[in-house]
Amino acid sequence: MAQNNPISPALASGFRDYLPQDMIPRQWMLDTIRNVFERFGFVPLDTSGIEREEVLKGGDPNFKMQIFKTFLRNQESGLALRFDLTVPLARVVSLYPNEISKPFKRYQMGKVWRGEKPQAGRFCEFMQFDADIVGSNRTSADAEIISLMYETLTALGVSDFVIKVNNRKILNGLAAYVGYSPDKTVEVLRLIDKLDKSGWETISSEIAETASLAPEQLDQLKRFLDLRAGSNEETVNSVLELMSKSPEAIEGAKELAEITTYADALGVPRSAWQIDLSVARGLGYYTGPVFETILLKLPGIGSVFSGGRYDDLVARFGGDNIPATGASVGVDRLFAALETLELIPKKKTMTKAIVLNFDPSVETYCNKAVGLIRQAGIPAELYLGKEITIKGQLAYALRHEIPVIVIIGSRERDNNVVQVKDPKNRVQNEIPLAELPAAVRKIVD
Amino acid sequence: MAQNNPISPALASGFRDYLPQDMIPRQWMLDTIRNVFERFGFVPLDTSGIEREEVLKGGDPNFKMQIFKTFLRNQESGLALRFDLTVPLARVVSLYPNEISKPFKRYQMGKVWRGEKPQAGRFCEFMQFDADIVGSNRTSADAEIISLMYETLTALGVSDFVIKVNNRKILNGLAAYVGYSPDKTVEVLRLIDKLDKSGWETISSEIAETASLAPEQLDQLKRFLDLRAGSNEETVNSVLELMSKSPEAIEGAKELAEITTYADALGVPRSAWQIDLSVARGLGYYTGPVFETILLKLPGIGSVFSGGRYDDLVARFGGDNIPATGASVGVDRLFAALETLELIPKKKTMTKAIVLNFDPSVETYCNKAVGLIRQAGIPAELYLGKEITIKGQLAYALRHEIPVIVIIGSRERDNNVVQVKDPKNRVQNEIPLAELPAAVRKIVD
Repeated sequence: MAQNNPISPALASGFRDYLPQDMIPRQWMLDTIRNVFERFGFVPLDTSGIEREEVLKGGDPNFKMQIFKTFLRNQESGLALRFDLTVPLARVVSLYPNEISKPFKRYQMGKVWRGEKPQAGRFCEFMQFDADIVGSNRTSADAEIISLMYETLTALGVSDFVIKVNNRKILNGLAAYVGYSPDKTVEVLRLIDKLDKSGWETISSEIAETASLAPEQLDQLKRFLDLRAGSNEETVNSVLELMSKSPEAIEGAKELAEITTYADALGVPRSAWQIDLSVARGLGYYTGPVFETILLKLPGIGSVFSGGRYDDLVARFGGDNIPATGASVGVDRLFAALETLELIPKKKTMTKAIVLNFDPSVETYCNKAVGLIRQAGIPAELYLGKEITIKGQLAYALRHEIPVIVIIGSRERDNNVVQVKDPKNRVQNEIPLAELPAAVRKIVD
Repeated sequence: MAQNNPISPALASGFRDYLPQDMIPRQWMLDTIRNVFERFGFVPLDTSGIEREEVLKGGDPNFKMQIFKTFLRNQESGLALRFDLTVPLARVVSLYPNEISKPFKRYQMGKVWRGEKPQAGRFCEFMQFDADIVGSNRTSADAEIISLMYETLTALGVSDFVIKVNNRKILNGLAAYVGYSPDKTVEVLRLIDKLDKSGWETISSEIAETASLAPEQLDQLKRFLDLRAGSNEETVNSVLELMSKSPEAIEGAKELAEITTYADALGVPRSAWQIDLSVARGLGYYTGPVFETILLKLPGIGSVFSGGRYDDLVARFGGDNIPATGASVGVDRLFAALETLELIPKKKTMTKAIVLNFDPSVETYCNKAVGLIRQAGIPAELYLGKEITIKGQLAYALRHEIPVIVIIGSRERDNNVVQVKDPKNRVQNEIPLAELPAAVRKIVD
């Protein structure tokens, strides 16, 4: 009986549901990421989805407009939904100085919320999966993050990708090198970040306007950006030469040289990563090396695994400066990309056996049969739906591609046996009830 | 360098963080639950944490005051945070009638938010882990939920618990049986639900006042509630006899009789569950059997795994009535209880081997060593902290109870060997670098 004034089941624009055929592979993806992160010695952390707004604003003031506030009983609570997992990490490190010993290598998986304009593939709620090393200023830590990114994507079966690495310290030297006012740095970097998406023609005219650059200054910038075409060693040496007057840029280039040595030692192939001087990353808290990952067949979707070093963020919440570096998988974006590339097989069920249930007089015996299969650790279902004929229930089992079908009538119950059907090999056998788990396992294996 | 005006890292009252020593066992708990749910043929679903407020209010109007609304740019968005996973499930079933074939057995793990008054062990954000069967009105489905609850708690190592089962249909017949106005039902049931917590003396006087009951009516009610002391068969028969004038109560009792037969067949021991006529459950959408789970050593914390049948909820979002039944683990409450009972061992790390890193001239070789261990699938760390002496780094490794310690100096690098230390057995050996993964595995296994 339908209700008179039903409530619309619509989802708000900018949000999405994951139905089982997507969730089964998505969960495989999350398990795989977690497994790699644990192999690197990261331990799990979970923080509240709701934070004090002050914490979020302090973490990255640029995000102010995109924060979802929360209200209780129509009263402002001073609370809001987190927009990333890095700011909460910095808060946690400051809040529990004694419980958390440094270096602290933690991973965290969770949803974050941003009030972005809904557009294709971009949602207001999405999942991030982060790994960070807090309390280490060593370049080995940054190299470890690159190795982690490489091993994670490889474990997920992704091959055509490149991890692009830069150093904010080099970019900070750019104002002096090209000759524009340092207070234009944020805007210029934001435009440089769009180089691969929009092309040099577009961004160069915008940069010229924003930072009032003369043509020879633009040429200077172009020369700098073109360095990324070389090997890591060539790029580092060119920066050391061209930007010799900027101590910060020199330091940044030397760090990238060390990172290259350590990443080689960790076994990251050069084909999987490269120094790219156009990478800036949007978030305001980065201070050193920055990382992003482009899928070569889908460059337009942007980075699927990004991060960087943020040595000042923890101190914003009190205490000493604690250096930190890390990266974050954009789980939903990566999942959508792998779907587009047809690298993710959809799957309807994980059930291995179904017991049909068409004769109410044997329903107790059917329950016994399904209980036996489950007790052997094999995922099994009793048919519980509306179909009352054997034909209708068989169709359900075949539609869900369940590999073993168990059929029970009153004759089977009276003889303490069951019919076991293997639809793929078109075989059906009668066996004693007690042998059912072993029979299912034999077909499934 | 400390910042001048740091932001307080405090968490808002009513919220909590899970540090790694808690998260490691909590994650084991979530994995175990998921494993059991999958064994029953449930498939994963994920829905948005933010829902349209109208959906939440329609799902359970009683929750209105406890809903966290969300605002973007200080504007009411009509959106709010979900307070359970059942209402979103009902919405999803209505929204995707073609993608979701019935019966739909789904599990979902996720955070929910309720604006409850913060008190010991009760938080505004907590995790639920639900399993529901949508599209089945069979009592076998309800019995399956009881079996699922039993198997889940057993897999988690919990033994002293009882699953209490009742039927709203019986409780709905109570007004006629005791003789009070049916419009007092909600209030009376809410008081009956407190019987175990507050005792008969307390609740009986409140019920007498609320529903204007005479002493003989209270006796009548007491007789009804005392039935739960008997076996399931005794309770069912007494209800059939005492409430013979209420067709709804009779139907409810017959359902409980069938559920008992099927739960027996599924292998749920009677010691783990019983019919208890005082169980009502707070949520407004239940229509049939209801379930709750009490830990016998901690009855005061309330139910840790609860649910029931809700045959009308899906229809609130349009379409036909679709029957449904299910249950939800209160993950955080159960975890806190198991901690109190000392059933959950805290663990600081999952890392099996650490490579010390005290001589900067061999840091590349150290990175090579840790990379080799990880490539063999063994969780390993390179020491990345501030300690620069071998002694300080050893202390870190021992404090974290990492079972294998790898020590490398320039001599080891020059000879392409490593020192492998097994602190538990006080053994240290020099071995070729290439044999490191095998040596670690030998100590760990």
